[in-house]
Amino acid sequence: MAQRAQPVRGMRDIVPPEAELRRQVANRILDVYAGYGYEVIETPAFEDLDVLMGSDGGDNEKLIFKVLKRGARLEEASTRENPEAGELADAGLRFDLTVPLARFVANHLNDLPMPFKVAHIAPVWRAERPQRGRFREFTQCDIDIVGEPGTAAEVELCSATFDALENIGIRGCTIRLNDRRLLRAAVEAHLGPAANAAAVYITLDKLDKIGADAVAAELTGYDRAGVQALLQWLEKGDLSLGPADAAQDLEQTLGCLARLGQSARFDPTLVRGMGYYTGQIFEVSHPDVPYSLAGGGRYDGMTARFGAPALPMCGFSIGFERVCEMVDRDAFSAGRHKVAVLCMGEEEMLRCLELARSRRDSEPGAVFNVLRRARNVRKQRDDLQRLGYTEVLDGQEFG
Amino acid sequence: MAQRAQPVRGMRDIVPPEAELRRQVANRILDVYAGYGYEVIETPAFEDLDVLMGSDGGDNEKLIFKVLKRGARLEEASTRENPEAGELADAGLRFDLTVPLARFVANHLNDLPMPFKVAHIAPVWRAERPQRGRFREFTQCDIDIVGEPGTAAEVELCSATFDALENIGIRGCTIRLNDRRLLRAAVEAHLGPAANAAAVYITLDKLDKIGADAVAAELTGYDRAGVQALLQWLEKGDLSLGPADAAQDLEQTLGCLARLGQSARFDPTLVRGMGYYTGQIFEVSHPDVPYSLAGGGRYDGMTARFGAPALPMCGFSIGFERVCEMVDRDAFSAGRHKVAVLCMGEEEMLRCLELARSRRDSEPGAVFNVLRRARNVRKQRDDLQRLGYTEVLDGQEFG
Repeated sequence: MAQRAQPVRGMRDIVPPEAELRRQVANRILDVYAGYGYEVIETPAFEDLDVLMGSDGGDNEKLIFKVLKRGARLEEASTRENPEAGELADAGLRFDLTVPLARFVANHLNDLPMPFKVAHIAPVWRAERPQRGRFREFTQCDIDIVGEPGTAAEVELCSATFDALENIGIRGCTIRLNDRRLLRAAVEAHLGPAANAAAVYITLDKLDKIGADAVAAELTGYDRAGVQALLQWLEKGDLSLGPADAAQDLEQTLGCLARLGQSARFDPTLVRGMGYYTGQIFEVSHPDVPYSLAGGGRYDGMTARFGAPALPMCGFSIGFERVCEMVDRDAFSAGRHKVAVLCMGEEEMLRCLELARSRRDSEPGAVFNVLRRARNVRKQRDDLQRLGYTEVLDGQEFG
Repeated sequence: MAQRAQPVRGMRDIVPPEAELRRQVANRILDVYAGYGYEVIETPAFEDLDVLMGSDGGDNEKLIFKVLKRGARLEEASTRENPEAGELADAGLRFDLTVPLARFVANHLNDLPMPFKVAHIAPVWRAERPQRGRFREFTQCDIDIVGEPGTAAEVELCSATFDALENIGIRGCTIRLNDRRLLRAAVEAHLGPAANAAAVYITLDKLDKIGADAVAAELTGYDRAGVQALLQWLEKGDLSLGPADAAQDLEQTLGCLARLGQSARFDPTLVRGMGYYTGQIFEVSHPDVPYSLAGGGRYDGMTARFGAPALPMCGFSIGFERVCEMVDRDAFSAGRHKVAVLCMGEEEMLRCLELARSRRDSEPGAVFNVLRRARNVRKQRDDLQRLGYTEVLDGQEFG
């Protein structure tokens, strides 16, 4: 029986010309980041499960794809009665690029410049329930500054992200800013100092999706009046509640972004799901879409988990699929000279291959594509036009 | 206790400036392929285990990293007595890009131009025994032609691969060619028509590494004189043994490559490990290294496994890490204007951020990197120089 031709459930193939568009979008983003001095790195797709679990990754930790142990170690684990996933697997696919970066920095501390400005674009995997428009494999495009404690990091990350979006033609964005120190003060003031802040953030982060009543219902175990007061704080924000430096930092970041001509505002409802943030957090909104195009924040000290000093760290991540959805496809594909040469039979093809090669040499950047003429030449011509071919020649006329 | 900062066993982090070099090498290779009309695609990192197993992938099928089932399906599988890996997992990480491509083509047959020329660059994973210089995650850079039955496919793939290598500065390569139809004829003539050709290929493929005696010893169950005769055939080659069209195709490919000015020769010892090849096979050698830089061949009909017509398919894969090892690093990093601005304190940084932004606007392609001055400024300057910075300024002088 034939095997399924569809990709693994919840993942997808990317057909032409979409993959080329993605490559160009990635290069344009990375070009901007390179101009700011962000150096690209790569990390493996897997991490040890220990690295991914207990990383304050919020709900994402529940969504890890685990990689089965192999050989004797698997045999040993699977003969136990009812082995759990953690015993059968010792590695997992990364669910973000932040946790791997903290491990990377700890591992290479002596080989890296410090402060270290880093760009990292790569796929991540989350076993979310498959649903329309949501995939289990997607690409993140991160920049991070390691070793910079001040708001200059936040300002530059926001500025670079804005410029990157502009360089792919996405204008009219706004940055929304908040600070975990303020949120924590609000949670503790209203739910008491013993409140489980990390769990509360995961719930508050759903406010957009499920509404205030559902959020309140999920925050069980807390005084109802306190929960209502917390939700009210989220509506209005009140900088006086938190530590003075958090308020100052927010003002400074907003002021600098204004001077750089970038739209930014304080948004007390911005929470973000991950537990690891320690200071300012931010997201990029665009009027055309209901979700954020990018998000990030400060997560000082994550390197300490890996035995390194607790370095200041701050990062911003673009949702690559989301921005690719928004770019103007014509602006990316335009302008290239693309010639297809359709041949009858092998002899003509071999002759045209040689000719095409010298044409490429004399016209750098142009495409000369030698192909056998299909039986359904009309469909072939349509397909080629869709792929941006402006000239479709017969092998006989080519020379 | 602190967690291990090292990556997963057998995998590695890529630190600057290596990752940027890799990005540039990939782009230069893909630029050449684009000029030939190869369209890029992407496929997911995982495939269903059914897709990967029984794919004639040779030893690679034993090296699959399997992804654990989740939730109820895992629970159900793990309560069985001594569950095997195949029951605990339903997906695996791809070990090459060829099997995923065949599935992709079957899945998107109506949306693709035909013949379809495709480029695919992505990581693959193999659970090989970790050893120096061999990694469990590495990148392949493939081109394939789907739907072209004639040697024009082989000629163009070889020519494009040569041009791609030349575009990253690797010259002096030779292509070695053989044909599975010849090999099969030799195996059947010497070991009998019932010989397990796929298993014999896997053993013959080790000739380079383990030598003729060890290969002969591994070919158990066959007449010793026949094994010796087969090994002798590998030394000399004898085109008359195989079908006439295999010999003609080899001659035609060699003749065309010679006219294109590319060094190529028949090599009867070339076998390649995978079982899925059906016609010509090829590898690229370079005098400076003992291993191949690229390899490929014809694997007609693989699409039929996925319920699609048995299409002609032929491909060539560059070992990305191997070519990155060989490129001249200076030639890639040279020429960019890179300025680092070292600031004392936050106020100076914020001022310089604004200045740097306008400098980038007026000098496209240049790098202006604003950083806090490190306590150990000497190390900072050394690190920046290593990353190609030609100017390192104090924040005060910048403007």
